[in-house]
Amino acid sequence: MATMPVSGKNLVVKVDMLVGKTDVPAGMTYRQAARKAVAMCVSDFAAKGARPEAFLISIGLPRGFTGRQVEQLAMGFSDASKRWNVKLIGGDTGEASDLVVDCVMLGLAEKIVPRDGARPGELVVTTGNFGYPPSGLKIMMHGATSDRNFRRKAVASVTRPDPNIEAGAALSGYLTASMDSSDGLSICLHDIASMSGVGVLLERLPVDDGVRQFALTNALPLEALVLGGGEEYLIVGTLEEGRLAGARAAARAAGADLIAIGRVTDKKGVVELSEGGHTRPVQRTGWTHLS
Amino acid sequence: MATMPVSGKNLVVKVDMLVGKTDVPAGMTYRQAARKAVAMCVSDFAAKGARPEAFLISIGLPRGFTGRQVEQLAMGFSDASKRWNVKLIGGDTGEASDLVVDCVMLGLAEKIVPRDGARPGELVVTTGNFGYPPSGLKIMMHGATSDRNFRRKAVASVTRPDPNIEAGAALSGYLTASMDSSDGLSICLHDIASMSGVGVLLERLPVDDGVRQFALTNALPLEALVLGGGEEYLIVGTLEEGRLAGARAAARAAGADLIAIGRVTDKKGVVELSEGGHTRPVQRTGWTHLS
Repeated sequence: MATMPVSGKNLVVKVDMLVGKTDVPAGMTYRQAARKAVAMCVSDFAAKGARPEAFLISIGLPRGFTGRQVEQLAMGFSDASKRWNVKLIGGDTGEASDLVVDCVMLGLAEKIVPRDGARPGELVVTTGNFGYPPSGLKIMMHGATSDRNFRRKAVASVTRPDPNIEAGAALSGYLTASMDSSDGLSICLHDIASMSGVGVLLERLPVDDGVRQFALTNALPLEALVLGGGEEYLIVGTLEEGRLAGARAAARAAGADLIAIGRVTDKKGVVELSEGGHTRPVQRTGWTHLS
Repeated sequence: MATMPVSGKNLVVKVDMLVGKTDVPAGMTYRQAARKAVAMCVSDFAAKGARPEAFLISIGLPRGFTGRQVEQLAMGFSDASKRWNVKLIGGDTGEASDLVVDCVMLGLAEKIVPRDGARPGELVVTTGNFGYPPSGLKIMMHGATSDRNFRRKAVASVTRPDPNIEAGAALSGYLTASMDSSDGLSICLHDIASMSGVGVLLERLPVDDGVRQFALTNALPLEALVLGGGEEYLIVGTLEEGRLAGARAAARAAGADLIAIGRVTDKKGVVELSEGGHTRPVQRTGWTHLS
């Protein structure tokens, strides 16, 4: 995310490139892919407490892409435009070897929440539990086993990501640092830690019973699903402990949870997980591409 | 090119996607390709009389792309940043099947020259002669024959396109309609004609002796090189006849020619070429991809 001063305000710009091979798993429609390309940018705005106003789309289409498929993409952009109240104002199309959808999103903000503002002693919070999108991918691409309800929720988290701009705006006055979790929770925590010159002690994994059960059933390491997945499009941030209740109420009013998962430490760049009285380092291993 | 009102000004945004397969011919370095990706956006700003301030780059890299090759791209972005005095403020990288460089360029403008402002009786002008980039491609890709000086100039027009922002700014007060010619002259004329609800009568081909000779030597149709090439990154526009001298002086001061090539007519959407007393239609056949 970049900013450029414009007449006393900050123009906020985010570009995010979706590529068919790496970002569109089998089972995702082109309409969903187009909507996801926009969601990827929206998520970053939400995490920074900035409201997007408009977006542009550059599309690279492989040969043989049909008019019907282009219509599907257009429907997906329209879905996104309505869902997040952002206007499609332009774009570019050309030919590429694989489907490429590059979304450019623009907005104005008084200020945005930085990544480098975390201070020792603060709490680490997220706007929800992790692990659904990587579980959904395991189901869609590798036939992992699950009950119907979990399957529906996990697959929907992949095909219809839903970043919450209102929650981001509500939290922006509370968070001292924040990021969107699209690259995975561990990368997010490592980046906030290294940029802020602090450490993070994770005191609990943000995970619910559905993902725990899914990991058990499929003999998958739970930590990898929670810490190393990605594409959750949740907000990960830090705040002063005394402001947690206010922040939580603000998040709830915007339809989001706020979960305290750990604490900022003074161990520069170190992310650790505390479990059963023991503390061990968390590697910076996040999202890896599908292929 | 899109605009968005910001605090009483117009934010101008352009996205243009360069794809290895279609936009980077054999013989062009990655450094040149990166510079070209930025030039593609700069050209559109120049044609609209808007000054770009900043750009962002999304890059899709194929597997096997080396660190050295990424450095070459970075040098090309730096070249462009210096050449046109625009600041690289952000971007995104990911994996793609082919090299993809999407440039997003931002600037502010009081107003931009429209495409739909041409009126019958006005002159049609360009900031230079056409045919060098398609000739350069014929040399680079198909071994077409030429003398050394022409070869150097034609190849440089492909590998180091050089849109002129100063000329665009100088002309913006004179032009009633304009476009950059990156899609080729005939497409440009057809688009201005159809959007303005007028026609164009081309009274001379904007071509110099070098391109004429190249066409003869290689038995290539001259009109195709001039009208159907593309990537000239020149400005094509319309203006009132009485303003030509002033516009030409302004262009010269900015280092550009200004050539009158025809006249705006009232034949809606029709582009014609007048030659030896005869008039015949010009097809909307512009740039086609390399492959």
